[in-house]
Amino acid sequence: MQLHQQAASAKSAAVALATAGTAQKNIALAAIAAALDANRATILAANEKDIAAAQESGMASAMLDRLTLTDARISGMISGVEDVIALDDPVGAFLHMSKRPNGLVIGRKRVPLGVVAIIYESRPNVTVDAAALCLKAGNAAILRGGKEAIHTNLALAQLMRDALAETALPEDAVHLISDTSRESAVTLMGLTEYIDVLIPRGGAGLIRSVVENAKVPVIETGVGNCHVYIDADADLDMGAAIIGNAKCSRPSVCNAAETLLVHSAVAIQFLPKAAALLNHYSVQLRGDDETQRILGDCVIPATEEDYDTEFLDYILAVKVVDSIDEAIAHIRRHGSGHSECIVTENYTNAQRFLDEVDAAAVYVNASTRFTDGGMFGLGAEIGISTQKMHARGPMGLQELTSTKFVVYGNGQIR
Amino acid sequence: MQLHQQAASAKSAAVALATAGTAQKNIALAAIAAALDANRATILAANEKDIAAAQESGMASAMLDRLTLTDARISGMISGVEDVIALDDPVGAFLHMSKRPNGLVIGRKRVPLGVVAIIYESRPNVTVDAAALCLKAGNAAILRGGKEAIHTNLALAQLMRDALAETALPEDAVHLISDTSRESAVTLMGLTEYIDVLIPRGGAGLIRSVVENAKVPVIETGVGNCHVYIDADADLDMGAAIIGNAKCSRPSVCNAAETLLVHSAVAIQFLPKAAALLNHYSVQLRGDDETQRILGDCVIPATEEDYDTEFLDYILAVKVVDSIDEAIAHIRRHGSGHSECIVTENYTNAQRFLDEVDAAAVYVNASTRFTDGGMFGLGAEIGISTQKMHARGPMGLQELTSTKFVVYGNGQIR
Repeated sequence: MQLHQQAASAKSAAVALATAGTAQKNIALAAIAAALDANRATILAANEKDIAAAQESGMASAMLDRLTLTDARISGMISGVEDVIALDDPVGAFLHMSKRPNGLVIGRKRVPLGVVAIIYESRPNVTVDAAALCLKAGNAAILRGGKEAIHTNLALAQLMRDALAETALPEDAVHLISDTSRESAVTLMGLTEYIDVLIPRGGAGLIRSVVENAKVPVIETGVGNCHVYIDADADLDMGAAIIGNAKCSRPSVCNAAETLLVHSAVAIQFLPKAAALLNHYSVQLRGDDETQRILGDCVIPATEEDYDTEFLDYILAVKVVDSIDEAIAHIRRHGSGHSECIVTENYTNAQRFLDEVDAAAVYVNASTRFTDGGMFGLGAEIGISTQKMHARGPMGLQELTSTKFVVYGNGQIR
Repeated sequence: MQLHQQAASAKSAAVALATAGTAQKNIALAAIAAALDANRATILAANEKDIAAAQESGMASAMLDRLTLTDARISGMISGVEDVIALDDPVGAFLHMSKRPNGLVIGRKRVPLGVVAIIYESRPNVTVDAAALCLKAGNAAILRGGKEAIHTNLALAQLMRDALAETALPEDAVHLISDTSRESAVTLMGLTEYIDVLIPRGGAGLIRSVVENAKVPVIETGVGNCHVYIDADADLDMGAAIIGNAKCSRPSVCNAAETLLVHSAVAIQFLPKAAALLNHYSVQLRGDDETQRILGDCVIPATEEDYDTEFLDYILAVKVVDSIDEAIAHIRRHGSGHSECIVTENYTNAQRFLDEVDAAAVYVNASTRFTDGGMFGLGAEIGISTQKMHARGPMGLQELTSTKFVVYGNGQIR
């Protein structure tokens, strides 16, 4: 019931937010940044509780690290809010406006989505990032983080609400769901009366659960089974650098590469070069027969499942293919539509790959790791969409908006 | 199982469609138009079977009329296909392209959605309209019409598939689901592996079922509880003409008005004027106390439910309000986010209404009946979205597309 009340009050707040001016929204964001800065001790104390509980439950160190806040990480959150202040307000822009033969003047205006719900996992900085982006785009945010971070998230949300209460914007623009049970998440996914869009941010299990259970409109994000394909005409040194970067610069993120495809004409030269580089990071290679033949014992046999797996780790599936067609077909069968790269000097193959591979981002001769709102010039991002509806790829402020048709008449009837 | 096979082959066809050129698509559409023209007798014979079954089951005459094809209606379908040929191909356009500081050249390119499923009710012309629009935007179409029109739909789909088989495009670009059971619809709504977007076109019951059951991304369409608000500063003759047109020109469609709101300052002058006009069409008025007081016995008392009802008939709910704020609040509570109109000569009230009313189309001084792809200059439409995600309002070819980021590098790593 509390959840329904929160959602209903978020919907009311969205009405006020929709007509708020850019200055009002920026003042509110500045108040949030100031509140975070003034209450570092409160935030860290709440985070301590989460860390203590996590340690008691034996949380793995990588996850514990994602959960942990420090003074520097709070500063990171604050500068994240400041970055959002600096972004252009997308709301109110007219996409076009024209006069119809009957004299009606019809325009299409950018408006907020309304109420945006975000279900996410451990990292507490998402609480602030998502609230700030939603607010700037004129949306109310309903945040439902993981249970591991609940004390931190509650403290952050309360600070943001208190900060908003001192401004012209309603504090109900930001809500955190305190019930972190599975049931509360499923309830949230069904609130079609209040929620305009639900964005899940997290692992494959969360995404699947949302796709299965949600009745509200969803933007699917994140799962990235990304490929780098080394063509017969590739610059092999460039190829090695790209797969090294795409796999190793941050293997835990969705734009990291999970499978290397190599044309058979260059496999014997390329694979040892790539393996030497990947070996610096102790990357485990899982290869097909040909890869095993070329690289020998340093490769373990790949299963079909390996080609479908987002390892998010120092593990790379490898396959030798006989043509660009085979590479594209492999990506079509196994890819998740996130980010795909060809390394080649061949003009026609480059264009074919860009045209025929169906993914949010397709690359020639660059690391898949660039798929990111900041790197693509959109500013901060609320997630990376892997669906085709509404938004695809990194989602910035514009992807947190909708449009309305505005019609100026002088008595027209039909 | 047959449904899964159809969906899988649609997905394969979508790969070929995605890279098909405009000329190929137009040739295929011309082949479909020619096939419809050459096989009028076949279509009419199939339609005869549906009509016979409908008459036997005692179908209401309005529905029977929607189901019935004539030579003229077949000509209408053919010219609909010709209209789609004449529309610009949205696929392949770059929305923008720019160079990032690191030298990456990043563009955003319009691409097809992939596989679009459409669930619709009785009118068989949707079978051809939807297939043609999907095809022009490079999408494969999975069509699931109502059981009343099954013979007609099967004949139309077979003609289109046969026509495609003679062109460079795959016949599997168009599929009709022959199983019209509720179970087949629910199965279709769950095929996340194959279907990129599902568009339901039909009454409130169908839309609700889709929102409840769909796991694939959905664009909600159609339900239109539209309002006309006569402000204190309205030109009352214009207001009467607009409500007369919005209610009576075609009451069975979603952009028809269902509720009239009148400012109390002009109610006593306006209501008799409007009632006289609406009386020509024998419109039943259901009014609040004030409306009853002004108009007397020709009004029956409105229930709260009347204000939530899409009558789709010669029935109009009426309410007298004391301010524009009350009008906007009423629309917020009862509207379905379709089309909303203010009639006023007051500049500030006009702008407030456009800004504050949250709907796909907001009007000053024009009939809500203009909410339509053709009237808005988008060409033919696949439906009218009442959700905020992906598309809002009339959806033309552009709304049947997605985008991809295309990245040209020369060895960039992160």
